[in-house]
Amino acid sequence: MVLAGDGIGTEIVAEAVKVLNVLQAEGAIDVTLQDGLVGGAAYDAAGDPLPEETLEAARASDAVLLGAVGGPKWEPLHISKRPEKGLLGLRAGLGLFANLRPAILYPQLADASTLKPEVVSGLDIMIVRELTGDIYFGQPRGVETLPSGERRGFNTMVYTESEVERICRVAFDIAMKRGKKVCSVDKANVLECTEMWREVATKTAADYPEIQLSHMYVDNAAMQLVRAPKQFDVMVTGNIFGDILSDCAAMLTGSIGMLPSASLNEKGQGMYEPIHGSAPDIAGKGVANPLATILSVAMMLRYSLDAVPAAERIEAAVSKVLDQGLRTADIMSSGMRQVGTAEMGDAVVAEL
Amino acid sequence: MVLAGDGIGTEIVAEAVKVLNVLQAEGAIDVTLQDGLVGGAAYDAAGDPLPEETLEAARASDAVLLGAVGGPKWEPLHISKRPEKGLLGLRAGLGLFANLRPAILYPQLADASTLKPEVVSGLDIMIVRELTGDIYFGQPRGVETLPSGERRGFNTMVYTESEVERICRVAFDIAMKRGKKVCSVDKANVLECTEMWREVATKTAADYPEIQLSHMYVDNAAMQLVRAPKQFDVMVTGNIFGDILSDCAAMLTGSIGMLPSASLNEKGQGMYEPIHGSAPDIAGKGVANPLATILSVAMMLRYSLDAVPAAERIEAAVSKVLDQGLRTADIMSSGMRQVGTAEMGDAVVAEL
Ligand SMILES: CC(C)[C@H](C(=O)O)[C@@H](O)C(=O)O
Ligand SMILES: CC(C)[C@H](C(=O)O)[C@@H](O)C(=O)O
Repeated sequence: MVLAGDGIGTEIVAEAVKVLNVLQAEGAIDVTLQDGLVGGAAYDAAGDPLPEETLEAARASDAVLLGAVGGPKWEPLHISKRPEKGLLGLRAGLGLFANLRPAILYPQLADASTLKPEVVSGLDIMIVRELTGDIYFGQPRGVETLPSGERRGFNTMVYTESEVERICRVAFDIAMKRGKKVCSVDKANVLECTEMWREVATKTAADYPEIQLSHMYVDNAAMQLVRAPKQFDVMVTGNIFGDILSDCAAMLTGSIGMLPSASLNEKGQGMYEPIHGSAPDIAGKGVANPLATILSVAMMLRYSLDAVPAAERIEAAVSKVLDQGLRTADIMSSGMRQVGTAEMGDAVVAEL
Repeated sequence: MVLAGDGIGTEIVAEAVKVLNVLQAEGAIDVTLQDGLVGGAAYDAAGDPLPEETLEAARASDAVLLGAVGGPKWEPLHISKRPEKGLLGLRAGLGLFANLRPAILYPQLADASTLKPEVVSGLDIMIVRELTGDIYFGQPRGVETLPSGERRGFNTMVYTESEVERICRVAFDIAMKRGKKVCSVDKANVLECTEMWREVATKTAADYPEIQLSHMYVDNAAMQLVRAPKQFDVMVTGNIFGDILSDCAAMLTGSIGMLPSASLNEKGQGMYEPIHGSAPDIAGKGVANPLATILSVAMMLRYSLDAVPAAERIEAAVSKVLDQGLRTADIMSSGMRQVGTAEMGDAVVAEL
């Protein structure tokens, strides 16, 4: 299922679909694409950021490719009608509890980072963020009026042991195929909920004798990402801490226009999307970077469609296009050739 | 009141006390110092990380100078007995709702940052973090056992309108003496509690027509701190987001051994402490950097003791010592002279 969403979503998804179509025509993969509405686009068309129809079709799909949702146009809406609710509804509705967010520095784009080259060269972190629990979905929540007439807003951070164990297993399994190091991030010195998280992570690790598990407080993790990010292999954490840390980690690479993400459920269904947003300021101008979305297709082929060779071809094609010096505006640097969204997509297709 | 706490606390506080004593002997200030126990040291001596006696004495003081608390020795303790509870108890017990955390790059230490010089040179951000509300203190909290036998951990993020207004006013007042720009950080697209925060911030800003108020989601704020930190003047946010972002911002400077902090209540009483921790790995070795604690004394003189000239003298002395090329191990670089904790303290005293 293809959900372009809002802002630059339509443009970047169009390039990713080109890639899928080429692989399909070749017989390298066998997919049927179905479009749907989500986010502000769905609100505008149907008064709901996640129409029942979209959720049903997504449930029936093997995988969902998402562009991006949101924009200033919908900010005045009540929180329950905002584009973000469409995204959160898909996560909850499909049970996409495991969000994989790689933060990889492309050697061709080493200069784009605001960090010194020696600090980030070769950076390759996988952040595993729990995506259907925590304060994002916890009850009770809301704003109440106290007897004094003053309002009081509240949200609940909550995790059960099985939710923690489930996401830790995903992180451990991934780490087994990488550097076998997992850093679990919590605030166990203050929050009981995350003190339990730490206990469960430790207990679950007993099944993975080869994994080297460490624990870090979230404030220190934010520091360490800036100080010495290469100390990390896989990081696992809850929904809200993961939201903050994965964006911080992504920015270390200087090229968030390059980073894909996957959100998986227990059945192997997944939703794939670039980690960047809908960039309303450049929407419709044909200048957005489609590579994160194209790399999201590669993740989709790898994790949900069992087409690893095709995934590798996409990744190699993206790397070649960068080698050729092609750059969209967000990753442009002197001596390179600046191209638009479609030209970048075409270049990847040509290299496939 | 002087609370050395744990780890390197004793060593660094000793240097700060030297500075206070010199100013006192000169008649530049008029303070009476009283020692007390907090954190692991207090637990060891009295079975409680915040003995009633310490809290009483702190309440009766104009200001508290704190070293640092915590260490692996006390990690196995129940959360209610950990050194951190001493710190949290002081914050709550004294009503220290406003945590001021400057992130300043010292020109002499520009190289210490992991970020490129052009990204951080001249960096001067003031983070105003709410310190007595939010998920740190919210009820209900704990770990319960469900009928299924599985455990469930929960904590509550909570703010009242008056708590938000109060901290926003502190941020706006500070910004009026600086660049008049305030960025309020929330997660209003997901959390009702922070949606209310945003409304209150906007409403309160109406009393400050000269202040340019912007809003940013916390994940984006973590990104922007890495991407372009100099866009910020004052940032204001809740307790947990402030914990994470202020550490991230501090690390941008590369020298967390240099950064002080102040925590103020409505009466102008304050607690002053370095933002770094108790560094158990180097405790007792005489190598810790005392400058953040000495600069915390300067903040104390400025905010609680109405001794601005003396505060400025301390800050100037620290700057001169850096100009002389003196460096503790944490900020050492080639061509400079490495000194220990006491030697650094003595050098500041000599320059006063
Ligand atoms: C748009 C928003 C609801 C979302 C989140 O907070 O999860 C986004 O920041 C993300 O990380 O995917
Ligand atoms: C030690 C800990 C309880 C504390 C906090 O989380 O507030 C610390 O990280 C800080 O920022 O002062």
